Amino acid sequence: MNSPDAAQLGKRAEQMIRTLAPLSSEPDKLVRLFLSKEHRQAADQAAVWMREAGLDVTEDALGTVRGSMGKGPKLIIGSHLDSVVDGGHYDGPLGVIAAIIAADEIKKRGIDVAIDVIAFGDEEGSRFPSTLSSSAALAGHFEPHTLNLMDAKGLTFEQALEAYGKNPADIPKAAYRKSEAAAYVEVHIEQGPRLEAANEPLGVVTGIVGQSRWSTTVRGEAGHAGTVPMNMRHDALLGAAEMALAAEKLARAFKDMVATVGRIEARPGATNIIPGEVVFTVDLRCMDDAERRRAVAAFEKEAQAIAAARKLDVKFQPFHAIDATPCDRRLQDLLASAIADLGHKPLRLSSGAGHDAQAMAKLCPSAMMFVRCRGGISHNPAEFTSEADMGAAVAALIRFIERFAARTN
Amino acid sequence: MNSPDAAQLGKRAEQMIRTLAPLSSEPDKLVRLFLSKEHRQAADQAAVWMREAGLDVTEDALGTVRGSMGKGPKLIIGSHLDSVVDGGHYDGPLGVIAAIIAADEIKKRGIDVAIDVIAFGDEEGSRFPSTLSSSAALAGHFEPHTLNLMDAKGLTFEQALEAYGKNPADIPKAAYRKSEAAAYVEVHIEQGPRLEAANEPLGVVTGIVGQSRWSTTVRGEAGHAGTVPMNMRHDALLGAAEMALAAEKLARAFKDMVATVGRIEARPGATNIIPGEVVFTVDLRCMDDAERRRAVAAFEKEAQAIAAARKLDVKFQPFHAIDATPCDRRLQDLLASAIADLGHKPLRLSSGAGHDAQAMAKLCPSAMMFVRCRGGISHNPAEFTSEADMGAAVAALIRFIERFAARTN
Repeated sequence: MNSPDAAQLGKRAEQMIRTLAPLSSEPDKLVRLFLSKEHRQAADQAAVWMREAGLDVTEDALGTVRGSMGKGPKLIIGSHLDSVVDGGHYDGPLGVIAAIIAADEIKKRGIDVAIDVIAFGDEEGSRFPSTLSSSAALAGHFEPHTLNLMDAKGLTFEQALEAYGKNPADIPKAAYRKSEAAAYVEVHIEQGPRLEAANEPLGVVTGIVGQSRWSTTVRGEAGHAGTVPMNMRHDALLGAAEMALAAEKLARAFKDMVATVGRIEARPGATNIIPGEVVFTVDLRCMDDAERRRAVAAFEKEAQAIAAARKLDVKFQPFHAIDATPCDRRLQDLLASAIADLGHKPLRLSSGAGHDAQAMAKLCPSAMMFVRCRGGISHNPAEFTSEADMGAAVAALIRFIERFAARTN
Repeated sequence: MNSPDAAQLGKRAEQMIRTLAPLSSEPDKLVRLFLSKEHRQAADQAAVWMREAGLDVTEDALGTVRGSMGKGPKLIIGSHLDSVVDGGHYDGPLGVIAAIIAADEIKKRGIDVAIDVIAFGDEEGSRFPSTLSSSAALAGHFEPHTLNLMDAKGLTFEQALEAYGKNPADIPKAAYRKSEAAAYVEVHIEQGPRLEAANEPLGVVTGIVGQSRWSTTVRGEAGHAGTVPMNMRHDALLGAAEMALAAEKLARAFKDMVATVGRIEARPGATNIIPGEVVFTVDLRCMDDAERRRAVAAFEKEAQAIAAARKLDVKFQPFHAIDATPCDRRLQDLLASAIADLGHKPLRLSSGAGHDAQAMAKLCPSAMMFVRCRGGISHNPAEFTSEADMGAAVAALIRFIERFAARTN
């Protein structure tokens, strides 16, 4: 029997996506939270598929499913099974499914390579105010205080683990020793529009961007919308408007940077009152940490100049910052070669979103392959990746593993 | 005994302001709503003062107190007793108090002029979603549907009237016949900063501005704040920011126009999501109705251009429009002469806020005198007008009545 082509691989992936799709806590939308009944069902399904592929299946103290083949340092391939509330069917599951199909094919082809296929459960952070706890555990960086975090129903992470039949004391056993982990590779939908714009199905991720998030508070003077002449106003909203546009201009001026004002509130917030105070958030991301810090400083300087010109006061309150995680250069090149082998052009692009690969990079060389998704839409029921593109992704992953095996043997 | 000077008149006004100040439904802030127990108390106090001044006191079906002297067409002088929630002590009561003191002085001086002093109860619209209902009733323009409006506790205007001991059937009797009303004059705090900026205590109001209010809905495309490059975004908030700044620029370009974006909401409103939809209000005011309409059209055109450049959609939903009410030219000049007689420079300025004079202008020639207030602040506990400025206002009102009497006799 010949090896399946990309079209056949895509068909198989599509069937598996459809098998996982109904595993939701709500009938009309996808909600698959960490350590929920639906997580249990998805994990069991993944374990079934892993066993069918001839892998040895275990599950760690955070409910992460591991399917192993071969001896020696492992090529770890995986993604996550959990979803955001009202999410899509591809974000996470595609990477788990691609890894299972690829491992199955590699085994069938008799290629000698040690692989662990991984299905994580806590990437989205949609149940507890934590993300990447299951990949952090594998990387040996699980934060013990995570156990005290509470979900919307008042259940702690620890209580949820116990209800899932797990013993928190076993979490450290989930960690790989560095010598056991050769590399980590993850297939994931892009969640952005760049592959679609470039008309290419697959991309090689150069790294996961660093982020700075802060809130900006602009204070002016509230006043009667009818009685204060324009030239005597200190309108906090107009200052904030200029600052939001300045953030956009800055992000456009720096290379590969994005800046977003996602929340804004004008106070007191009445039609006929000049806003006296406005609070808005800025989320700024870039692969280059130094550039990101320069941009944050440039924004603050620009916002202060805008405030001064309008006789407003401005304050900045950072609430999140994380450095960039570059992907391993050699793994990137191997992924690019594998994609090129299939006749596609391997677009190099950064990931603006966080991924398990970020946590795994602390353990071993890590890399990611992105798969085109329609309209760049994710975290939304409209999320869609075609069977053909999934097939290309699985085929490229298989080719990557072959190249990886050839390189290490 | 000599006539009191401005300082003495100011002292008397200040004492009366202090007498009304505690009449509030809440202990630590001023809340005096239409047809409330505190309205009753304030109306009774006004009636006591009117009787002390030798006026014949009646009360109409909306609780408006009227103190009359003389025969023939009346010079009607008044303002309102109700407040906004957490309002100040001068907005409204100063005009009632000034009228009572002035009528008292005119009577003492034996000047032959027919005066009605009026204390309205529903200017602010802080209880029912209506304003100026009590002055509309005097002008013969009370809207019957007003009776069905509901307050925050679910009580209708009609029920509240009945609880206040009034019969809605008597409302038409509150109306003046045109032949009975010679003129309406109102003293009111400016509620803006222009007199203070000009270092003058008193101003002559040229008219009450017209208003257009509408909400603007900008639709773009929500997206992941990390994965959509800047040049592929359709960020509704950035479009809205440009439109708010365009409204400011427009208002500055037209003469004596103000435009305010007081409310703004970005949806979905998460730190890490590009806003897909933004709704904001615009409140635009101007004395010249044609100019105002031109400005609204210019804003729409400009907003559409901004939307087109960013590939956004924009829609406008008007929810309030009222034409300007010019003040009577001859009354304005009489007020200006009276102010000049006292040695002050009568600044001519429009009113950006609505007033009972707006409703009374439908009945008879109407005019207003503005009194300086600190920082232009009103609708706020920090609202303040000095004793000296109140004294100047009362003295100017007396002088105006003398001039008015001389002119009509």
